[in-house]
Amino acid sequence: MASSFQTLPGFRDFYPEECAVRNHLFRLWRQAAAEFGFSEWDAPVLEPLELFTEKSGEEIRRQLFEFVDKGGRAVALRPEMTPSLARMVGAKAASLRRPIKWFSIGENYRYERMQKGRGRSFYQFNADILGEAGRAADAEIIALTARALELAGLKSQDVVVRLSDRTLWFEFLSSKVAPEAVGEVLAIIDKIEREPQEKILEKLSAHCADATALLADIRAFLQINSLEALEAFLNTLADKKESLSARLNDWRALLGRLNAMGYGDWVAVDFGIVRGLAYYTGFVFEVFERSGEGRALAGGGRYDNLVAKLGGADLPACGFGMGDITLRLSLEERGLLPQFLNAPDFYAVTSGDGATQEAALADASQLRRANLRVEYALKGAAFGKQLKAASQSGAPFALLYGESEIAQNAVRVKDLTTGKESLLPRDENLTAHLVAVRRVGLPKDPCHGHEH
Amino acid sequence: MASSFQTLPGFRDFYPEECAVRNHLFRLWRQAAAEFGFSEWDAPVLEPLELFTEKSGEEIRRQLFEFVDKGGRAVALRPEMTPSLARMVGAKAASLRRPIKWFSIGENYRYERMQKGRGRSFYQFNADILGEAGRAADAEIIALTARALELAGLKSQDVVVRLSDRTLWFEFLSSKVAPEAVGEVLAIIDKIEREPQEKILEKLSAHCADATALLADIRAFLQINSLEALEAFLNTLADKKESLSARLNDWRALLGRLNAMGYGDWVAVDFGIVRGLAYYTGFVFEVFERSGEGRALAGGGRYDNLVAKLGGADLPACGFGMGDITLRLSLEERGLLPQFLNAPDFYAVTSGDGATQEAALADASQLRRANLRVEYALKGAAFGKQLKAASQSGAPFALLYGESEIAQNAVRVKDLTTGKESLLPRDENLTAHLVAVRRVGLPKDPCHGHEH
Repeated sequence: MASSFQTLPGFRDFYPEECAVRNHLFRLWRQAAAEFGFSEWDAPVLEPLELFTEKSGEEIRRQLFEFVDKGGRAVALRPEMTPSLARMVGAKAASLRRPIKWFSIGENYRYERMQKGRGRSFYQFNADILGEAGRAADAEIIALTARALELAGLKSQDVVVRLSDRTLWFEFLSSKVAPEAVGEVLAIIDKIEREPQEKILEKLSAHCADATALLADIRAFLQINSLEALEAFLNTLADKKESLSARLNDWRALLGRLNAMGYGDWVAVDFGIVRGLAYYTGFVFEVFERSGEGRALAGGGRYDNLVAKLGGADLPACGFGMGDITLRLSLEERGLLPQFLNAPDFYAVTSGDGATQEAALADASQLRRANLRVEYALKGAAFGKQLKAASQSGAPFALLYGESEIAQNAVRVKDLTTGKESLLPRDENLTAHLVAVRRVGLPKDPCHGHEH
Repeated sequence: MASSFQTLPGFRDFYPEECAVRNHLFRLWRQAAAEFGFSEWDAPVLEPLELFTEKSGEEIRRQLFEFVDKGGRAVALRPEMTPSLARMVGAKAASLRRPIKWFSIGENYRYERMQKGRGRSFYQFNADILGEAGRAADAEIIALTARALELAGLKSQDVVVRLSDRTLWFEFLSSKVAPEAVGEVLAIIDKIEREPQEKILEKLSAHCADATALLADIRAFLQINSLEALEAFLNTLADKKESLSARLNDWRALLGRLNAMGYGDWVAVDFGIVRGLAYYTGFVFEVFERSGEGRALAGGGRYDNLVAKLGGADLPACGFGMGDITLRLSLEERGLLPQFLNAPDFYAVTSGDGATQEAALADASQLRRANLRVEYALKGAAFGKQLKAASQSGAPFALLYGESEIAQNAVRVKDLTTGKESLLPRDENLTAHLVAVRRVGLPKDPCHGHEH
């Protein structure tokens, strides 16, 4: 009889091995966030539909799991955390101490075509700083992104934080196209590597008289790959000197902090990152494999106007998101996922049902109350068969309860690796003794022990 | 400008303080499950609608967040984990080592009228043993339920596991009403304390000739509150002696194991628990405050036929669920929730932007890489103002970077409780020294230290 029920496409079952990997990533993320002094928050998986359309426009609905609930409300499973963040921070903006440094680990849902590294449900680590407009906040966000990857075992030789600047793109383009067209031009630039040149030129010509010249200027801008190159490039521009040189100072401050924190070699100046989303306002970044393969491991940037729009509080903000699926693939390919063992600390083996079993249950319960992991057979079985199960469980030690041990009010502890045994009295110190055995092994010269 | 967006009714925002409480419960649950050797699993929040209607019938749809997705599939947010458990275990039944001991911590969703201790979204700790039919598995599940509550700080004087038996109810009632009516009669009994006697009698009379006599028998059965009383009661029954005395042995074995594990005083024989859900097949239990107030803290029992129905594998099973909302209320009322401090270990204070700031950032980054929590101001501020922020952050120590410290390539560590200070060289041992300071405080006789 086979079950007809299937997991929905794009959703994932987490069997214990998978769940252990997921929880490992969650632990890394929580650890990194704690080191940087961020506090965890969470929001409902279901939110009013308009919270998402207000941020991203009606077109987001194509990607949403949306419906009308039994109370007639238009609702949707969250596709991301940022709108909920803006809503929650906005609601308590007056009472929250600033800067607000929050992180979340939440599952998000998008109804989209499935491809490698992208399901319809995925976990994302988000961290945001709200209420601080300075470059120190951007640096903190970028350093935390790198730190989370570093904790996972990745190095600056493996991945790169491609750092760009929407402010500078605006400054640069607004002398060449109408200010209101800059957003559209950036969306064209976002596809510059994926679309044929004729198509790019055709699109650009809608926004300027000489598309060829504009494309050449854009390509020159895209060549910039260092602070020095940026400085040299800006010096060649005649117009807007002042605002551009102020922005150059922002770059110096940002990269200076990242260097001081030891994350300078994780970062590359790269104006190819424009972040499609319209709400980014300043520094933006995406993290990729140095090899260039695969989807972005993380991405983020500054979004100074969004909280006001969604949360009603005028708070500058920056943050990032890091998904579990791409990160997991990257760690797996590099052999950076640890082996997760679910082995007990002790496995109790008993002969018979009466006093031996009672003793085993009592001791097991005491050990569990000392936070050790203890297992035993739940079904009557021969002593030898139980001992085999003890070995198979991966437990380093077995606790043997036979008639003779019980007659002496004792338990025999067996090191399942060496085969050594030691008889311990079942007195009020037993739990403490076994906790010590778990930590440092059997006593070297056991009073009552013998070897087999 | 206030935001118009609201959390949906019955859903919860987790601001950092709330999230810390939630995560505290999650930690307790994971700890208890680990002690008992259970492995964590998880399933999608969205499942095919029929997975839930197959288990609970069409009437469950009233309570579901259900909709048709963009691919035309009838789907629902999960109202509980058990159907997904049956689906997943069924799909891999042949390859999973038995007994299968799994736990999950998942959010569930029910569209229902809101009341105290019940929202439309709630977290539940579920633990189940599949593939083991004996009383040892029931005992393990009940002991784990108690252990989770014990870890949270509750005692057997606070709460009681009301233990009942659907098998015995069936045995008892099937000599009095038609076997196919037993389920309905149990549903009537489930409401015996909440509905007037006439209504109960009226309902019972649909299933037997003498409803008054049946109700008297039922009330006598409900009086049983110990193993001895159960034995005495069963001895008064003329019929079905054999199966009843076999079941009495099951009771002895179950209570014997719970006694041996030290959880005997958590459990009370109480046939008032019948667990409305039709799929329970054996021992069932619910945990309540001893005071009788509030909703059940947990509930569970044996369900030997459900996995075959939903998962296609014939596996006996038992398990329990424990919700976060009721548990939290109980812990809160007793003052058993710890204070959650989000204080950094160190707070760095700098004078100026140049070398002092670089030194502070470098040291902070090294400390974070040693897994300590370090904060500093993200905005330029006077030294004294930063020092005040350090105190307000709750950090036990401040790291002071002034001109004179930097000139000596040193950092001044200030104990923010005592006011004591100590100058530490910024050499390759600095991180190790500060890790030690965090653990045991400033050196008692600091070489370079002085007091203010």
